[in-house]
Amino acid sequence: MIKAAIIGGSGYTGGELARIICRHPEIEVCAVTSRQLAGSSISKAHPFLQGFLDINFQERLTGDYDVVFTATPHGASMDIVPELLASGVKVIDLSGDYRLKDPVTYKHWYGHDHKDIINLEKAVYGIPELFRENIAKADFVSNPGCYPTCSILSLAPMFANGLVDDHLVIDAKSSTSGAGAEPTKATHHPNCGASITPYKVGTHRHTPEIQMCLEGLYRGKLDVIFTPHLLPVVRGMLTTSYVTLRQELSNEVINKLYADFYKGSRFVRLTGIPSMQSVAGSNFCEVGLEKAGRNTMVVMGAIDNLVKGASGQAVQNCNIMFGLEETMGLDFPGLGV
Amino acid sequence: MIKAAIIGGSGYTGGELARIICRHPEIEVCAVTSRQLAGSSISKAHPFLQGFLDINFQERLTGDYDVVFTATPHGASMDIVPELLASGVKVIDLSGDYRLKDPVTYKHWYGHDHKDIINLEKAVYGIPELFRENIAKADFVSNPGCYPTCSILSLAPMFANGLVDDHLVIDAKSSTSGAGAEPTKATHHPNCGASITPYKVGTHRHTPEIQMCLEGLYRGKLDVIFTPHLLPVVRGMLTTSYVTLRQELSNEVINKLYADFYKGSRFVRLTGIPSMQSVAGSNFCEVGLEKAGRNTMVVMGAIDNLVKGASGQAVQNCNIMFGLEETMGLDFPGLGV
Amino acid sequence: MIKAAIIGGSGYTGGELARIICRHPEIEVCAVTSRQLAGSSISKAHPFLQGFLDINFQERLTGDYDVVFTATPHGASMDIVPELLASGVKVIDLSGDYRLKDPVTYKHWYGHDHKDIINLEKAVYGIPELFRENIAKADFVSNPGCYPTCSILSLAPMFANGLVDDHLVIDAKSSTSGAGAEPTKATHHPNCGASITPYKVGTHRHTPEIQMCLEGLYRGKLDVIFTPHLLPVVRGMLTTSYVTLRQELSNEVINKLYADFYKGSRFVRLTGIPSMQSVAGSNFCEVGLEKAGRNTMVVMGAIDNLVKGASGQAVQNCNIMFGLEETMGLDFPGLGV
Amino acid sequence: MIKAAIIGGSGYTGGELARIICRHPEIEVCAVTSRQLAGSSISKAHPFLQGFLDINFQERLTGDYDVVFTATPHGASMDIVPELLASGVKVIDLSGDYRLKDPVTYKHWYGHDHKDIINLEKAVYGIPELFRENIAKADFVSNPGCYPTCSILSLAPMFANGLVDDHLVIDAKSSTSGAGAEPTKATHHPNCGASITPYKVGTHRHTPEIQMCLEGLYRGKLDVIFTPHLLPVVRGMLTTSYVTLRQELSNEVINKLYADFYKGSRFVRLTGIPSMQSVAGSNFCEVGLEKAGRNTMVVMGAIDNLVKGASGQAVQNCNIMFGLEETMGLDFPGLGV
Repeated sequence: MIKAAIIGGSGYTGGELARIICRHPEIEVCAVTSRQLAGSSISKAHPFLQGFLDINFQERLTGDYDVVFTATPHGASMDIVPELLASGVKVIDLSGDYRLKDPVTYKHWYGHDHKDIINLEKAVYGIPELFRENIAKADFVSNPGCYPTCSILSLAPMFANGLVDDHLVIDAKSSTSGAGAEPTKATHHPNCGASITPYKVGTHRHTPEIQMCLEGLYRGKLDVIFTPHLLPVVRGMLTTSYVTLRQELSNEVINKLYADFYKGSRFVRLTGIPSMQSVAGSNFCEVGLEKAGRNTMVVMGAIDNLVKGASGQAVQNCNIMFGLEETMGLDFPGLGV
Repeated sequence: MIKAAIIGGSGYTGGELARIICRHPEIEVCAVTSRQLAGSSISKAHPFLQGFLDINFQERLTGDYDVVFTATPHGASMDIVPELLASGVKVIDLSGDYRLKDPVTYKHWYGHDHKDIINLEKAVYGIPELFRENIAKADFVSNPGCYPTCSILSLAPMFANGLVDDHLVIDAKSSTSGAGAEPTKATHHPNCGASITPYKVGTHRHTPEIQMCLEGLYRGKLDVIFTPHLLPVVRGMLTTSYVTLRQELSNEVINKLYADFYKGSRFVRLTGIPSMQSVAGSNFCEVGLEKAGRNTMVVMGAIDNLVKGASGQAVQNCNIMFGLEETMGLDFPGLGV
Repeated sequence: MIKAAIIGGSGYTGGELARIICRHPEIEVCAVTSRQLAGSSISKAHPFLQGFLDINFQERLTGDYDVVFTATPHGASMDIVPELLASGVKVIDLSGDYRLKDPVTYKHWYGHDHKDIINLEKAVYGIPELFRENIAKADFVSNPGCYPTCSILSLAPMFANGLVDDHLVIDAKSSTSGAGAEPTKATHHPNCGASITPYKVGTHRHTPEIQMCLEGLYRGKLDVIFTPHLLPVVRGMLTTSYVTLRQELSNEVINKLYADFYKGSRFVRLTGIPSMQSVAGSNFCEVGLEKAGRNTMVVMGAIDNLVKGASGQAVQNCNIMFGLEETMGLDFPGLGV
Repeated sequence: MIKAAIIGGSGYTGGELARIICRHPEIEVCAVTSRQLAGSSISKAHPFLQGFLDINFQERLTGDYDVVFTATPHGASMDIVPELLASGVKVIDLSGDYRLKDPVTYKHWYGHDHKDIINLEKAVYGIPELFRENIAKADFVSNPGCYPTCSILSLAPMFANGLVDDHLVIDAKSSTSGAGAEPTKATHHPNCGASITPYKVGTHRHTPEIQMCLEGLYRGKLDVIFTPHLLPVVRGMLTTSYVTLRQELSNEVINKLYADFYKGSRFVRLTGIPSMQSVAGSNFCEVGLEKAGRNTMVVMGAIDNLVKGASGQAVQNCNIMFGLEETMGLDFPGLGV
């Protein structure tokens, strides 16, 4: 069994990691840390884990592990990761700290200097469907954000195949669990429970992450317009993206290109209209396409933000890093209803 | 025009008072205080009031008013009310400070001594359908809680007519706006947005308020079991109450007693199954009755917790205190959908 | 008093018309028809109207009225309107029958020939903020769809002032009441209650309506990409639109242009991020703007789909047609919470 | 592998059976019937099953199976079950047809005679935590309703231990998926998406089922008051029950009795306040207790109505009937968030 530890386990991604790994046949959670909750039972923060992971939160890691998942707040991972990597353990970081390759871009969007540029260079961006081979060789994976995962998976074949021009609009809709476990005005139910609200329009930190990744596939600069919205839903995410086809292509041709691109990628499913319910609780991403207007392609993607958008994808990366079957412990359907 | 001031206007009941009074033909809001937001525009806290009440929050009241609504947190009103009443202004208190007549009961449920027993004795409990005449003569009204309003209005004819025995169960379901404007774990959308959750089972402060009022009608002691639940809904409330009939009575007879009891009370509407949607945004209370089992009567009530359960009822009380038509400024239907 | 009748009053827009008009000082609802419910009380279909409009549904109109609102299904209005207009009554049609000026476009999107081309030419498209003068002179107004109202009001100053190029994306999110009162798979709660779902991507009938109106302001052809989504919310609508600025313009300049454009239009309110809650239950439209990427302007609009998106706007049109104050009976704030 | 067939697989319980069984190590779904959808892919009705169960709906069963799950509408199972049982296959019926042991009671609540009294007598009521031994010996299990499962599991130790008197109130709150896949007025989102609504007060068919089972444990007659409510939630159920203690007992004593009663029952979890989120998607039932008033015990239970309330429990019964580990294929935690 692969021995795993979770640093920062009191939040939603920490709980979700434990929920997934507790039924994984080859990985086990041996330790979970939380500064605030050290000493108390994990099932106090995550009651659904009672009977599945009956250990206490620790203040810090003490034993030896094969892999550490850092589910720490943005800015905190880069204080921890250097030491962990130096100790020889594999690390999967679920924070935003190591996603943007360029330290200047990092500083621009996160507001402070990056403290660990050496490992920033080493970090492999963890979307298995795109970077499977690099992940397999990596000791350190930076797990993508939820919005980038959904946006990039639904758009990658367009840009990798050079089908579209350099301007794209991503209108994204996230559930409230994406905002984390800490109560805020924005996620106070009376404020968000009967409406959809745009936020951080043009200024969300996931924008450069999407841009970096799609520009890599496109081999050129892109003008990414990204508008996140908060939905009155607890779990799940939908992105509706708008790209401009460079030439007339039939839906069949494009669907064929998508099918080829994702051949062997169990978790990307091509559909008509993607369904948040179909992927809820699962590691699947549904992608659908429709033409509109003169030459616009509307590309829709749906994921569970806590699974494929965070902890499920982290486990998928872990599987690949340890040479396990990529889908191990993750191959179950969404709730559907 | 009656000049009104609102003390503590940054929360939901303060905003709702302004929303209602701004279209009242005989009352106008002349001042709103908020310690935290003093100096900023009211529409910053309540954007929907833009164009309707374009004044700034004040730190404290400075001018002369005919009536002051205190929408202050529990425990804060009794520091303010004595001075207000001494100055000769009429006061309607929306907090819990003056609802429980017995200082011993108050201390038991609120955890500290009452500081203003003189005015506690003077305060008239403000359910117009029951205490209209006393309200008309009062300078000081204590506005009831939302749960008590809904429970008492739906049950009063049962106890006033001696139809039932001394044990009752109230299973109450409230929307999240009843919890106030301050974010908490309980009202964090991911925690409450896809479930119903019981809370403060057997220990909610509205229990003695319901008990006090129904015992007054019943002229005897009651065993009140009150269980509040938090709904994933922004506005509205439903109570499902269970009482035991002392004798076999047909639905027709009971409905007739209810109709007689509420004759002249525009805002209580007898229906089959009450609808939260039918009363949403309005000052109406819908009440319905069904028999079940051997001799149980299931009594259901629905109100908008912010209107009939708080600010609308306060305005109704104000109308009565000033000799206006009781329904003035309040006689509009609920949203329905 | 202006005597009004509603044809097709069993649905949501019919109920909403009655809800609004029942507190209008100068209009009264004298008759409401419904084939299915003829003979039964209006409050059976719309319980919230009990005590406000206690009449029965009629099978057909019999008396004389000053204005008739046709809240009939698409395709049914054009069978009724010619006779009504011939009788000299003013008509406001809430269906889609008379919105598209070009019969060829009509046939393309609605799938059958238009049967009343004479009145199609006469019909004035009823967005008061744009066509107030024509409405004032009209006997027949075609009330716009909810999506077009929200999209057009938020985008009109851009196109009227020639600030943007000819390509636009409208990503629209509607509540479920927009789908009408008839149960369907799409609006079955288990299917829609925990997700957002795109539908009729690139093929929704409101697309040509938006295009027609904005092209009129732009004086040129437009490529309109319109994607509606179904929200798990009962009331309200948000549109997020993406337009490309032709030249660099500061937010201040653009906001100034918007303020000038809507000077005298009480119901359009310029905000930062529009709020569905702030306009809920009201006739207001909130509009906000943010720049993103190279030269994209993200334009957001929020309305209550049943009020400004349907029945409220119909009453606003009626006010103008009869020379009343445009805001009469409509000048109340949204719920806010 | 145990070969399973599902009759009536187009609804929610049919889809949920397939979702659960597709990852069960010892059972496989070999056939699914649907009259309406015969010939079309299962993933057309249940898109989340794509890649997990890629077969077509059949009109009727043709092959040999070890077990048949009948997920048919009420009234249809008793036409099918006799023949199935005669053929020697084990049957688990998810409809209401074989739940009420007494044909007279059946007729009273279902409105028509029972057609298969022989098998009605044979059917074992399938709550494993209470009737494990009988289920192990049975060829035919009648799977309980969702409300009875939640109510009975939370109340059984009270009645089995004779702690309470003969009157009980169950105030139950169900998600909309409990109403099935067919759209209705009640589950039309605009009607149910922002409220909680009582329905079939005192007349719901699950009442006699609860009564029958609890009376068996109590060995005496009970007065069961059962009030179902429809929640604006897609999945899950909460029951809040009120029973009267015969003698003063501490919470510790009662909790100890519950713990003893459910010793060895993995899926019943004693908690403080039960959480619908903690059990969502899982086969767990959470139970919590609080005292209130003079001698009332408030007993709360939460389940996922489609899992422990239907298909998960059916699989649990199947495991027992075939001598498998009771938890096989079901031992995973709820979503939590």
